[in-house]
Amino acid sequence: MESLTVVKIGGKVINEEAELDIFLKKFAALKGNKILVHGGGNIASVVQNKMGIPPKMVEGRRITDADAIDIVTMVFSGLNKKIVAKLQSAGIQSLGVSGADGNLIRSRKRSVTTIDYGYVGDVEEVNAEFLKALFDLGIVPVVCALTHDNQGQLLNTNADTIASELARGIADHYQVDLVYCFEQPGVLSDFENKVVIPEITPAGYAKYKADGVIVDGMIPKLDNAFDAINAGVDTVKICHFEALDKVQSIDYPGTTLCLK
Amino acid sequence: MESLTVVKIGGKVINEEAELDIFLKKFAALKGNKILVHGGGNIASVVQNKMGIPPKMVEGRRITDADAIDIVTMVFSGLNKKIVAKLQSAGIQSLGVSGADGNLIRSRKRSVTTIDYGYVGDVEEVNAEFLKALFDLGIVPVVCALTHDNQGQLLNTNADTIASELARGIADHYQVDLVYCFEQPGVLSDFENKVVIPEITPAGYAKYKADGVIVDGMIPKLDNAFDAINAGVDTVKICHFEALDKVQSIDYPGTTLCLK
Repeated sequence: MESLTVVKIGGKVINEEAELDIFLKKFAALKGNKILVHGGGNIASVVQNKMGIPPKMVEGRRITDADAIDIVTMVFSGLNKKIVAKLQSAGIQSLGVSGADGNLIRSRKRSVTTIDYGYVGDVEEVNAEFLKALFDLGIVPVVCALTHDNQGQLLNTNADTIASELARGIADHYQVDLVYCFEQPGVLSDFENKVVIPEITPAGYAKYKADGVIVDGMIPKLDNAFDAINAGVDTVKICHFEALDKVQSIDYPGTTLCLK
Repeated sequence: MESLTVVKIGGKVINEEAELDIFLKKFAALKGNKILVHGGGNIASVVQNKMGIPPKMVEGRRITDADAIDIVTMVFSGLNKKIVAKLQSAGIQSLGVSGADGNLIRSRKRSVTTIDYGYVGDVEEVNAEFLKALFDLGIVPVVCALTHDNQGQLLNTNADTIASELARGIADHYQVDLVYCFEQPGVLSDFENKVVIPEITPAGYAKYKADGVIVDGMIPKLDNAFDAINAGVDTVKICHFEALDKVQSIDYPGTTLCLK
């Protein structure tokens, strides 16, 4: 089976052009088939504020109403083109896509329960055939955090989830490594002293959660990661964006999730 | 030789969602290989004004400075994703691209002469192999008015020119019809009474210009069109966007450009 590395980049790296450039050079150098998935950092909020449509948040999550989805669409897809232009200059035959392009990711608008998140999508289906066709052409897909409902509506979709769903959706055809890059050196047992947990199994994860070592925003990220592993993804790695060039080597300094 | 229709949509149609929907239904119904090229209407100017960075124009042309290229990139690529989502809902396996994606269109930043147009690109090369690969996969490319310099910089590029360059770039491999759709019924000899000139040859074009019948913004459009015909494009048609479903029929009501 051919290998495939699905890399998700997000957080503050996206906001800082110099850091993004360092990351993209390392991504360009990765061997084998690869996909880059990116979020929008806080650029959508900055643009929303500039346009006089301040972001609405509930419990730290964006409410994507009609005005917001238009701005999120512009910001994510604009950033997507900028990343592709940079990768092309590094000799990578990249192609920027949303979930609508090539019908790559079909999703369903999230139902309104106690909170109406607006135009937010929960992934239903990944078009693995389209991805395979791109790899056969030597193309590196760059995927932004937008999906579509196949009824003409774009939907804001969590980039961690997109990375996980893409990795799962194509795991039958490739040996898939899923890598989450951000501005921390990995999953930490001691945030103050930046002590990285090198390996986490499902049993270890349960204990770290019970002990309050793994909390907050790291929980949905790890839930996604273990879902992917349970669905056939080979390994999930969580590391600093500057460590991306080491994910394929033995001196990898970040966190690896595995079944046992 | 297989046929290929390159359709450019621009002007006010882009600004009005209801009109855009009518146009896209007709585009979806076109037979054979096809490409859609779109401009940004006046949406970039609207967003620039909302963001407090009013557009700078010289002789009716946008000066795309560093702030402007970021906004133009967001607006054009966001619109590109919206069009793709709509086409997907009509059953068209579409893929939205800029000139950076798949290295489709490489351009050179326009030299500063008396005017510095900023981040504006003049087309240098079209990647016909990439387009052919997409057609072989049954994919309909939707191309926005951005190119790249292969040094990491996106460049704002006239959409009429992009349509013409794409048509020329692939004319060796397909029988190409290039169609410019807008909100007029064709090239007019009498603007008041909307009298369409059904056919224009190079000799006719020279006379219409000398007589002041064809003026202003229509001249670069027709220059582009004749350049394309001279470079091997089969026909160029200029028509109302609601006539798109008739470009392949005998009761086509717009203007056709041809060599003789």
